[in-house]
Amino acid sequence: MTQTPLNVAIIGMGKWGQTLVNSVQGLSESIRFVAGATRTVSKAAAFAERQGIEILPDLAAVLARDDIQGVVLATPHSQHREQIEAAAAAGKHIFSEKPLTLTGPDAVAAYAAAEKAGVVLALGHNRRFLPAYAKFSHLVREEIGSLRQLIGNFSSGVAGYAADSWRSDPAESPAGGMTGLGIHVVDAMIGLGLQASEVTVVNRRKADHGMADTVTALIETVDGPVAVLTTVAGPGRYWRIEAFGSNGWATMNGEHSVTFGRAGAPEQIWNFAWTDMERAELEAFADAVSGTAPYPIDAEQGVRGVRLFEAICRAALDAPGGRASREVAQG
Amino acid sequence: MTQTPLNVAIIGMGKWGQTLVNSVQGLSESIRFVAGATRTVSKAAAFAERQGIEILPDLAAVLARDDIQGVVLATPHSQHREQIEAAAAAGKHIFSEKPLTLTGPDAVAAYAAAEKAGVVLALGHNRRFLPAYAKFSHLVREEIGSLRQLIGNFSSGVAGYAADSWRSDPAESPAGGMTGLGIHVVDAMIGLGLQASEVTVVNRRKADHGMADTVTALIETVDGPVAVLTTVAGPGRYWRIEAFGSNGWATMNGEHSVTFGRAGAPEQIWNFAWTDMERAELEAFADAVSGTAPYPIDAEQGVRGVRLFEAICRAALDAPGGRASREVAQG
Amino acid sequence: MTQTPLNVAIIGMGKWGQTLVNSVQGLSESIRFVAGATRTVSKAAAFAERQGIEILPDLAAVLARDDIQGVVLATPHSQHREQIEAAAAAGKHIFSEKPLTLTGPDAVAAYAAAEKAGVVLALGHNRRFLPAYAKFSHLVREEIGSLRQLIGNFSSGVAGYAADSWRSDPAESPAGGMTGLGIHVVDAMIGLGLQASEVTVVNRRKADHGMADTVTALIETVDGPVAVLTTVAGPGRYWRIEAFGSNGWATMNGEHSVTFGRAGAPEQIWNFAWTDMERAELEAFADAVSGTAPYPIDAEQGVRGVRLFEAICRAALDAPGGRASREVAQG
Amino acid sequence: MTQTPLNVAIIGMGKWGQTLVNSVQGLSESIRFVAGATRTVSKAAAFAERQGIEILPDLAAVLARDDIQGVVLATPHSQHREQIEAAAAAGKHIFSEKPLTLTGPDAVAAYAAAEKAGVVLALGHNRRFLPAYAKFSHLVREEIGSLRQLIGNFSSGVAGYAADSWRSDPAESPAGGMTGLGIHVVDAMIGLGLQASEVTVVNRRKADHGMADTVTALIETVDGPVAVLTTVAGPGRYWRIEAFGSNGWATMNGEHSVTFGRAGAPEQIWNFAWTDMERAELEAFADAVSGTAPYPIDAEQGVRGVRLFEAICRAALDAPGGRASREVAQG
Repeated sequence: MTQTPLNVAIIGMGKWGQTLVNSVQGLSESIRFVAGATRTVSKAAAFAERQGIEILPDLAAVLARDDIQGVVLATPHSQHREQIEAAAAAGKHIFSEKPLTLTGPDAVAAYAAAEKAGVVLALGHNRRFLPAYAKFSHLVREEIGSLRQLIGNFSSGVAGYAADSWRSDPAESPAGGMTGLGIHVVDAMIGLGLQASEVTVVNRRKADHGMADTVTALIETVDGPVAVLTTVAGPGRYWRIEAFGSNGWATMNGEHSVTFGRAGAPEQIWNFAWTDMERAELEAFADAVSGTAPYPIDAEQGVRGVRLFEAICRAALDAPGGRASREVAQG
Repeated sequence: MTQTPLNVAIIGMGKWGQTLVNSVQGLSESIRFVAGATRTVSKAAAFAERQGIEILPDLAAVLARDDIQGVVLATPHSQHREQIEAAAAAGKHIFSEKPLTLTGPDAVAAYAAAEKAGVVLALGHNRRFLPAYAKFSHLVREEIGSLRQLIGNFSSGVAGYAADSWRSDPAESPAGGMTGLGIHVVDAMIGLGLQASEVTVVNRRKADHGMADTVTALIETVDGPVAVLTTVAGPGRYWRIEAFGSNGWATMNGEHSVTFGRAGAPEQIWNFAWTDMERAELEAFADAVSGTAPYPIDAEQGVRGVRLFEAICRAALDAPGGRASREVAQG
Repeated sequence: MTQTPLNVAIIGMGKWGQTLVNSVQGLSESIRFVAGATRTVSKAAAFAERQGIEILPDLAAVLARDDIQGVVLATPHSQHREQIEAAAAAGKHIFSEKPLTLTGPDAVAAYAAAEKAGVVLALGHNRRFLPAYAKFSHLVREEIGSLRQLIGNFSSGVAGYAADSWRSDPAESPAGGMTGLGIHVVDAMIGLGLQASEVTVVNRRKADHGMADTVTALIETVDGPVAVLTTVAGPGRYWRIEAFGSNGWATMNGEHSVTFGRAGAPEQIWNFAWTDMERAELEAFADAVSGTAPYPIDAEQGVRGVRLFEAICRAALDAPGGRASREVAQG
Repeated sequence: MTQTPLNVAIIGMGKWGQTLVNSVQGLSESIRFVAGATRTVSKAAAFAERQGIEILPDLAAVLARDDIQGVVLATPHSQHREQIEAAAAAGKHIFSEKPLTLTGPDAVAAYAAAEKAGVVLALGHNRRFLPAYAKFSHLVREEIGSLRQLIGNFSSGVAGYAADSWRSDPAESPAGGMTGLGIHVVDAMIGLGLQASEVTVVNRRKADHGMADTVTALIETVDGPVAVLTTVAGPGRYWRIEAFGSNGWATMNGEHSVTFGRAGAPEQIWNFAWTDMERAELEAFADAVSGTAPYPIDAEQGVRGVRLFEAICRAALDAPGGRASREVAQG
């Protein structure tokens, strides 16, 4: 058991780091941000003042503080493994934004470090915490029969990132929309039990920002369903997962609505009230630390997600001139 | 100009043939069924009596009748070419159910026969005649910017056909759900201008009826969008086409609803009143015969649709043990 | 038991009479129209020829025919009672369009005549036969707790009737939209068990056609819910019934969708497939004649509906200059 | 011009007062809560600590502070007038929760006090700030023609208030759901230009908590539309406004969706993204103080709303034993 609320520091105070803080600060009884560290302090000073957050020089300074029990990483993906290992070694609990790491071995090492240190490593897949996802998942597992096909799209209204953002660096975003968008679809499918064997990917680059912006992936499994993951950067916000089974189908339409259909019956829709999914994932992190409930994404799922993500990115990069490329996957 | 109403005969009076008759008989001022021919007369006798249709021995007997100006083919796909050639030679206009033929050369020959005889050859893709498709098509061409991705699914509540139906014959349904379901998605995409270069297909057979029931196709184009076609036989009725462009997205949700989204604006939905799409396509056939308006699916689109369908079926059949197979397409 | 199909005649072959015929002719196995009578034969001749209906001189000629077992009345409302009495006396079953009659005593007499003759008198409230209404009714009775409030609106896209239509006659349409629109809401509420004690009505006349086109009625009951009925002629098609109970609420949204809500749970929606409600009511009439199932609207409900309708119309006519008027109701 | 952010104090730190603070604290750049006063300090202490708010003894202590520029009133309705007059006299800007006051004369006095002091008096009708309301209002004014009928329902999932809440006091909630629920519908209608002449109200009391929980009001106007306001406490959250005009209709469905219909065209729906309406109204208050934009609810609308509210409450209280009562209105 740990004291309530859990005192944490935000590492990386860019736009997303601020969103995470805003989701709980003053609003949650189980978690609060007391400190932070970031590359460009000037960009975060007004925000930190408004939210009552002490800015520390760097991660090391955060880890040295006894009154801080955990860190929340909203840093470049390639730094996650090293930061997780350092935080774990310092006995701090860790919440890391997705993707956890860019390679399977890094993911394995990160979870191993947390396990060795006996700290929580929570992976920040916010959509896992939507009531609509829970309902959708239930329908897929219990109501639609044997799963045949799984189709997911997450597109955005942003065609690319600012040139000076680390997110524009191909080393951080190896296959365009995959790190910011497709990774969410990967996790949604992992959460439904998908175990990929091969992926065939077409990767297109059309917009001016130079990043790949249209990823289309056909995902095979040995015994399970065939899956399709698609993502486009630019057209506008879109989130949808479709599952087709032997006796019915279910879809998650945006973040708050689920539909279920089967032969001979009316379509059924559940519309959920808006909830703050970032608050939900951070409070789930606090609950895992306090021992109230385990974090819903375990090491096995976390690693499997990174491996499938990595296979899609590798196929995307191998694809010659926008043609399809097929790779073995271990997701 | 031809007399009104257009007098036609139904060839093939199974379930679908009856649906076509029911959609206009007594209800349309431009077309009516006066005769019919079918393999098993006993199954259609009560229906024919109810709808005032004279049953003739065979197609030849129909073509010999001067008071019949056109034929409507709801016969096995593999017979279409020969029946179209015979009808054209007899100077009869032809409405043919989809797929027009099972191979590209047969499609070319069918259109050539009609052109030579100066008769109309209308292809029965009923969803082309939905007001919602017209709206969707407009959004795709005019509102969403450069098209990046096109995703379409048509699934059904029927896991397979009766054992004694010609539709159960693999020679008539070479890739399971493709002839009954996927072909509609193919045509919807052809109608939006898709020109396929390669297809990668995974084809699964799970249900007891022995037919392939889960088709997943990744469709590449040279310069255009990447497309995905999926279909599952069994889970329940489902029709959805999604288009993602550089500036927006649009979806056709079922047969009567269309949604449009773009960054920074509310989602917009148009819900259309129910219309009878079979009546619409048959009256469009009558209009094409009378010269009122050309039939919206021309020979070029009709042939392109068959070629893409054929490429998907070929890839599906080549796919070893449910794994992905890639083929060149000419759709 | 009666022979199948039931042979009936359509009395009144205007637009609505034709709609009734079209809904079953050639399509139903349990009922068919073999004859008809109408005021202006010239307007119905082409239709009758298309649907294979013999036009007879008048109702008396229809009633004299032994091969006709029932009549379907789509005639002016004020004629219904007399026609029902004549048909019943001739031993014919009767399906009557709504409103059954314009006064309570006429309704009582009509049902009495049918009962005395031992024939079926079926009242044509098509919306009763919608699967969505059945679901809505179930939710209201079983799921939302004690009923507190009932609100219903049926509006149309037609601001008025053609000047030469009998529907334009104030004697036939005493309170504007009530006979064509509001009566449906009345029956939907009667079907849910509403027993009115007083009505307060505001009646407005705005459009050029001179008919009252905006009816707003507050309906009180002794122990049951408070109800509101509203109808506007002109703005566009709209059908919605809302029920608020002690533990939940339910709405019928258009003809094919139902929503259910309660505190602390997601909204649930059921979307039903399109069905032909006129075919459903006419086949239910045939089923009642053959003894397969009783017609769902019995004499008690039918009379109660006319009485509530009559009270609303009386209040509407009494309302001075568009102000509210309150009347006792016996619905 | 005033300094940014606007420093304000929350008066009344119950559940709703806390909701208002939470909507902007740390999140808004234009307004922040620096202090507060409340009846039962013990209930708000943890909240105040979390949100960095200094608790002062009472309103007088707040008004004495030079660093506080405005007050936000979430206090019992009957105290608003006096508190507004005191705050205005102290030169503080005022944001008051609805209802502004319980009587017309009090509302007039409150606005007069603010005007005399040259301070902003902003009325907290949060739904005015929904993008969906703006769209709905535009449709009603510009697209549906002459307005005929206006129907609004706001129901809740709470059957009553805690016995020790001031909201349970009949002096504060004279007609049950009217102060918490119906007042929002009143304002939505006032915002659309409604000018009531009479109201007829049925008021029912069914739930155990002793408060009237079912209000049904028929609202007449001299030349404008007929309106209906309904509200039920208990069944579950429900918000819907329907407007019927001579050429079309529009509805606001919940807080984020709007539908528009007219004859011969598909229904059009706009689904808006979730926004925080309390943040929006408080930032609009700050904008009014800074002179950026006038507050959208002016004194004339504010007074008109209270008068209509008062007339409905008076009719509700006069209604004998749950029967209808009619009163003159000046809304």
